[in-house]
Amino acid sequence: MRASEVRELLKLIEQEDIIPFGGGMPDPTLFPKDELARIVEEVVRDERALQYSPTEGIRPLRETVAKLLRSKGIEVTYEDVLITTGSQQALDLISKVYLDPGDVVVSESPTYLSAIGAFRSYEADIAGIEMDKGGMDMDGLRSYLDKEWKRCKFIYTIPTYQNPSGITMSYERRRELLEIAREYGKPIVEDDPYGELTYEGEVMKPIRSLPNSDFVTYLGTASKILAPGLRVAWMVGPKDLLRKCSLAKQATDLCTPALTQTITKEFIDRGYLAGHLEKLRSIYRVKRDAILEAMKNYFPPGVTWTHPNGGMFIWVTLPHGMDTSKMLPKALEKKIAYVSGGAFHPDGSGENTMRINFSFPTLEEIDEGIKRLGELIEEVGG
Amino acid sequence: MRASEVRELLKLIEQEDIIPFGGGMPDPTLFPKDELARIVEEVVRDERALQYSPTEGIRPLRETVAKLLRSKGIEVTYEDVLITTGSQQALDLISKVYLDPGDVVVSESPTYLSAIGAFRSYEADIAGIEMDKGGMDMDGLRSYLDKEWKRCKFIYTIPTYQNPSGITMSYERRRELLEIAREYGKPIVEDDPYGELTYEGEVMKPIRSLPNSDFVTYLGTASKILAPGLRVAWMVGPKDLLRKCSLAKQATDLCTPALTQTITKEFIDRGYLAGHLEKLRSIYRVKRDAILEAMKNYFPPGVTWTHPNGGMFIWVTLPHGMDTSKMLPKALEKKIAYVSGGAFHPDGSGENTMRINFSFPTLEEIDEGIKRLGELIEEVGG
Repeated sequence: MRASEVRELLKLIEQEDIIPFGGGMPDPTLFPKDELARIVEEVVRDERALQYSPTEGIRPLRETVAKLLRSKGIEVTYEDVLITTGSQQALDLISKVYLDPGDVVVSESPTYLSAIGAFRSYEADIAGIEMDKGGMDMDGLRSYLDKEWKRCKFIYTIPTYQNPSGITMSYERRRELLEIAREYGKPIVEDDPYGELTYEGEVMKPIRSLPNSDFVTYLGTASKILAPGLRVAWMVGPKDLLRKCSLAKQATDLCTPALTQTITKEFIDRGYLAGHLEKLRSIYRVKRDAILEAMKNYFPPGVTWTHPNGGMFIWVTLPHGMDTSKMLPKALEKKIAYVSGGAFHPDGSGENTMRINFSFPTLEEIDEGIKRLGELIEEVGG
Repeated sequence: MRASEVRELLKLIEQEDIIPFGGGMPDPTLFPKDELARIVEEVVRDERALQYSPTEGIRPLRETVAKLLRSKGIEVTYEDVLITTGSQQALDLISKVYLDPGDVVVSESPTYLSAIGAFRSYEADIAGIEMDKGGMDMDGLRSYLDKEWKRCKFIYTIPTYQNPSGITMSYERRRELLEIAREYGKPIVEDDPYGELTYEGEVMKPIRSLPNSDFVTYLGTASKILAPGLRVAWMVGPKDLLRKCSLAKQATDLCTPALTQTITKEFIDRGYLAGHLEKLRSIYRVKRDAILEAMKNYFPPGVTWTHPNGGMFIWVTLPHGMDTSKMLPKALEKKIAYVSGGAFHPDGSGENTMRINFSFPTLEEIDEGIKRLGELIEEVGG
């Protein structure tokens, strides 16, 4: 096990004068404090919110989540929902159930850093499949599975506004992925933390809502749509996997805090979510537009970047031969932070890439920070 | 992995007419709701309480916990404290770091059910050492270590008001345990959820506060002294173990909820803890006295039980040949629940024993329930 770059960056962000493109945190000024204050004052007087609770999650939240998922086309009841202590716990539990040392998880490349961390903590390898504008390359997936069918235990994907690339998988690919997974008999784990954060174009339906997708495990979370400090997330999946994950969870933390589960349930049940999402979308849309505009204005020729329709991240590719990891100390001298792309590539490649977050910094920081980053790229690259 | 008896019992407790001696839950009427209501209303307006937070825990809580531990004679600073999502998570992380399949954890027998669950989830064996009134038998421990020195990875103990037995390890044994552990080069994991709940006799100092105990890992929790629904606990231990546990925690749940960490910190910093503990002790003392009195009045000859000076549990031993596991369905018919002792014995023995919780049931339930249990024992045993 090794300390990850993001972790070190979280410490740097505590230095207040660094412009923070590195993290993946929501804008803290948008937390719905008034609504939460109203809720907690009542919730804390409910004994059940302070007591031990069932490992699967409190039933009222499981029912609320099932209803929310049905509104997205995922036909489930509360019995199909397991509450987890953040989606990170779901990744840990799924790994514990599915993976033995030497097994392989197939994922997009680049992919979510802490998913790589979870899979590796069970001594599994990650096989990264290249992406283009439409998401994971299906020919690449097929040819990998042809070669390594036996070692692959599941396919991990973040199909919508992917972390770190910002790329969204097309419907054609989603259907093809389902077909391939069925054909090769491999489970899909669909991680969907950003699906509600659409700023442009079509709202994408989860893979788990498409026909014949019952074998897909779907992960959702309150972290990006409400507050990560609650650590409330949910997982639906095949009954046998859910049962095993629930047993593994019991040995891991007994239960997710009843208090934060109850707060989340009340926030959704009282109808606060829809309005809050509207607010998030409108402000994050402005930030996304601002960062794309700043990149256009300040980045030198030869630099390319993705144009995400939602989520929190933009993926930047510098000219070949440049190394964002080596450039990072200079960036920190200029008081800007990013995560260099190598960390997100299971094979350690992508040394000329970086992930830029636009949800956390302010509009002023976005303009000033991208300007400084553009200057730095020019200095180092020239 | 298998569903544990306690888990099934938690479901039964939801049937309201069962007298619940089975769980290990605090009395929910004693939760400090007014103090918590005052705290949460403010805390929820602090952005940091809603955001992602450092894996090690928020620094203000780590400082508060270090101060609390120093008041118990454990000389640490905030850097020695890792916040965990309940002590169950500490057991999971320690297991992940220390244990490989086939390794052994030495513990008291009987011992905490979910510790057995955590160790077994890493395919380790548990070697249970017998206890008497003074705690773990040190001759038994020595002779086990002589035989199986290599396989043993650490010694797990709940020295004060042990779960499930209610037994407290004497100071003589605590010092001897430290000596043996040093001699054989084995770490000690000291689990201390009940140490603050003393109803009679001397307040016992943790093993970790005795001289030359720096190699002991100490686990404390807010679950029994504040509220388990917060899932806030803490761990101090050797620097290298703490660093590895922190890395493992990152892959497991990223961080413990900043919200419940901040609530716990405020509860202690505002000086509410001392008064709350006084209240808990005075009411649990009355419950303990009532259950001991009821056992004296209603249990037939041949039944013996422990006399705990604190904590939440009494350990009951029926005459040889009786089987509390087989008796349980009849108990549930009589609307009383307990946990049969076999589950707490790593070797599955103890079929004539049971754990009785006295913190959760009301005084009326205690009297009526122990009366019914006495009648049942008489029926089945006669």
